[in-house]
Amino acid sequence: MAVAAAPADLVPELLQEYGALAKERLDRYLAPREPRRYLYDLVADYPHRGGRMLRSSLCLASARAFGAPAGDALGTAVAIEMLHNAFLVHDDIEDESDRRRGMPSLPALHGTAAALNAGDALAILSLQPLLDNRMLLGPAVALDILEEATRTARESVEGQAMELGWRRENIADLDTIDYLRMILKKTCWYTTIYPCYVGALIGNRHRPDITPFIRFGYFLGAAFQIQDDVLNLVGAERAYGKERDGDIWEGKRTVMIIHLLRQATAPERAQLLAILARSRGDRSAADVQWVRQRMASYGSIAYAQQLASGLAGAAIHEAEELLAPLPDSRDRRFIQALPRWVIERT
Amino acid sequence: MAVAAAPADLVPELLQEYGALAKERLDRYLAPREPRRYLYDLVADYPHRGGRMLRSSLCLASARAFGAPAGDALGTAVAIEMLHNAFLVHDDIEDESDRRRGMPSLPALHGTAAALNAGDALAILSLQPLLDNRMLLGPAVALDILEEATRTARESVEGQAMELGWRRENIADLDTIDYLRMILKKTCWYTTIYPCYVGALIGNRHRPDITPFIRFGYFLGAAFQIQDDVLNLVGAERAYGKERDGDIWEGKRTVMIIHLLRQATAPERAQLLAILARSRGDRSAADVQWVRQRMASYGSIAYAQQLASGLAGAAIHEAEELLAPLPDSRDRRFIQALPRWVIERT
Repeated sequence: MAVAAAPADLVPELLQEYGALAKERLDRYLAPREPRRYLYDLVADYPHRGGRMLRSSLCLASARAFGAPAGDALGTAVAIEMLHNAFLVHDDIEDESDRRRGMPSLPALHGTAAALNAGDALAILSLQPLLDNRMLLGPAVALDILEEATRTARESVEGQAMELGWRRENIADLDTIDYLRMILKKTCWYTTIYPCYVGALIGNRHRPDITPFIRFGYFLGAAFQIQDDVLNLVGAERAYGKERDGDIWEGKRTVMIIHLLRQATAPERAQLLAILARSRGDRSAADVQWVRQRMASYGSIAYAQQLASGLAGAAIHEAEELLAPLPDSRDRRFIQALPRWVIERT
Repeated sequence: MAVAAAPADLVPELLQEYGALAKERLDRYLAPREPRRYLYDLVADYPHRGGRMLRSSLCLASARAFGAPAGDALGTAVAIEMLHNAFLVHDDIEDESDRRRGMPSLPALHGTAAALNAGDALAILSLQPLLDNRMLLGPAVALDILEEATRTARESVEGQAMELGWRRENIADLDTIDYLRMILKKTCWYTTIYPCYVGALIGNRHRPDITPFIRFGYFLGAAFQIQDDVLNLVGAERAYGKERDGDIWEGKRTVMIIHLLRQATAPERAQLLAILARSRGDRSAADVQWVRQRMASYGSIAYAQQLASGLAGAAIHEAEELLAPLPDSRDRRFIQALPRWVIERT
C-alpha cells in the first residue's frame, strides 16, 4: 500500500495526475482539422494554455470514490473542461478581457467575431464525449449525463445574465446573499456541483439524490470563486494569469465591491458608482487605485476572506455527510481536502 | 379527399400550418422564467419576431412523408428553430448587424455581452426538446438525433469560421466553388440537410443513408442562401426585415461579391478590396452605391440568380430520387415544391 500523501500535498498531487489524464483525452477531441487557421487552432488555444483541471479532476475522483474506474468518467470529465473553456472565451468577450492565462485573450488576438465563433465551437464539441458515453455507459446513463450537463449549462448562463445585468444597469442595491445566489448559478453549478454529482452518477450507474451534492458544491464553489476574486486583487499576476485588478477594471460585482458599496459613506458610494458606471476604456488607473484603497480602509478583502473561510468550513461538513457511506480511498480524501485547499491556495 | 393545393400555394400554405404548430410548441420551451429581464426576455425576442419557420416545417413534412405522425417530430423541429435563432443572435454580433426582422438587433438593444449570453442560452435550450425525445422516441432514436444535431451545429460553426476568416483577412482569391463549399457547411447543413434527414430518421426509427439527403439539401440550401443574398440587394426592406444592402455594408463574401472580384478590372478590383478592407463603420453610402453599380455593370446579380436557378433545378432532380419510394402525400409534394419556391419567393 502506497504511503498516503499528507493532506496538503494530496490535492496538488491528484490534480497533477488526473489533470494529465484528462489533458491527454482532451487532445484527442481537439486534434487539428480543417478549417484550422480560422477555427480549430483557436478552439485548442485556451485548453492548451493549461489550467488547473479542477473540474475534470473532481469528476474523476468522484466517479472513483463512488466505485467506477476512472476510464468510465474520462469523457465526461473532458467535456466539462471543454465547456469551461467555451465559457472563458465568451466571458472574455463579455468582460472585454485582454488577457487570459498569461497571454492575450482570444478576442484580443483574433477579434470578437472569430473568438465568439470559436467559443461556440468549443461548446458544441463538448457534447461529443457525452455522446460517446453511449457505447461506454449505455444509452440510459449517457442521456442522464446529457440532461445534467444541459441543466448545468443553463444554470451558468442564468448566473452570467444576472452578473452582466447588474453591471450594465450599474445596480447598487446588492448584498452578499444576492452575490451568493448569482455565484451558485454562474460558477458553483458547473465547477463543483455537476462534476461531483455526475461522477457519483457514473459510479452508481443511476442518478443519486442531488440535494447533498448541491449543498457541498455550493459551499465549495462559492469559497473557490471568492478566493479567486481575492487573488485577482492580492495575487501575483504571473501565477494568476489574468491582469492584476482586472475585476475592478471590468467593473465586476465581486463580494468586495458589494461590501464596499454597503460600507462606504454616501459620497464614496456615489464616487464608486460613478466609476462602475464608466465603460472599461474610460476607467483610469487612478480610479482602480482609489477603489483598492477604499477596499483596504473598509476591510472588504478581509470580509471576503472570512466569508470564503466560512463557506469552506461548511463544505468540509457537507463533504463528511456526502462521503460517509463510502470506503476510505485517496479520491475520497481528495474531495474531503478540497475546501481547505481552495482557500489556502495562492 | 381534400383538393390538392396548386404547387404555387402549397409551400406558403404548409409553412403557415406547420409553422403555427411549431410556434405553439416553441412557446412552451420559451415560457418566461427568472432571470427574466436579464435573460429570458432576450432569449424569446427573436423567436417571437416571427420567421418563416422553414426549417421546422421541412422537418415535420419529412417526418410525415416518411411515415411518422407530426407529433413525433415536433420537439426536434422546434429545437432547430431555437438553434437557428441562437445562430442569428451570434451572427448579429459577429456581423455588427443593427437590424433583424424589421427591428433593432439584440446587441443593438442590450449590448454585446447580454446578447452573446442570450444566444448561448438559446443554444443550450435547444437541447431540451432533443432530450425530451427520450420518452417519445426511446433512448436510441433520441441519441441518434442528438448526434446528428451536434454534427450539424459543428458544420455551421466551421462554415461560419470560413466566412469570418475570409472577411477578416480580406481574401480576394475566391471563386464560386469556395463559396459553395462554405455555404454547404454554414447554411445548408442546418437549414435543409439536417431537417430533412432527421425527419426521415424519425419516420424510419433508424438512420437512413445520409448521402441523398446531403445532395438534395445542399442544392436546395445553396439556392436558398443565394436567393436570400440577392433579395438583400433587390428586395423591399420591409419584407426582408434586415437593412437593404446590409451584406455590402457588412463586407460579406456573397456570390455577387466573389463574381465581381473576378470580373472587375484591376483598378476596380483594388477599389473593391479597399472598400471591403474598411471596418463597417468606415464604409460610406457612396462605397455601397459604387459596389452596387459595379455589380449591375458586370451582371453579378444576374449571375447569382442563374446559379440559384441551376441549383434549384438540381434540387428538384434530387428530390425526385429521394422521394421516389414514398407514397404520394401533401408533405411529399411540399418537399418536391420547395426548390421552385426558394428561387421564386420575393
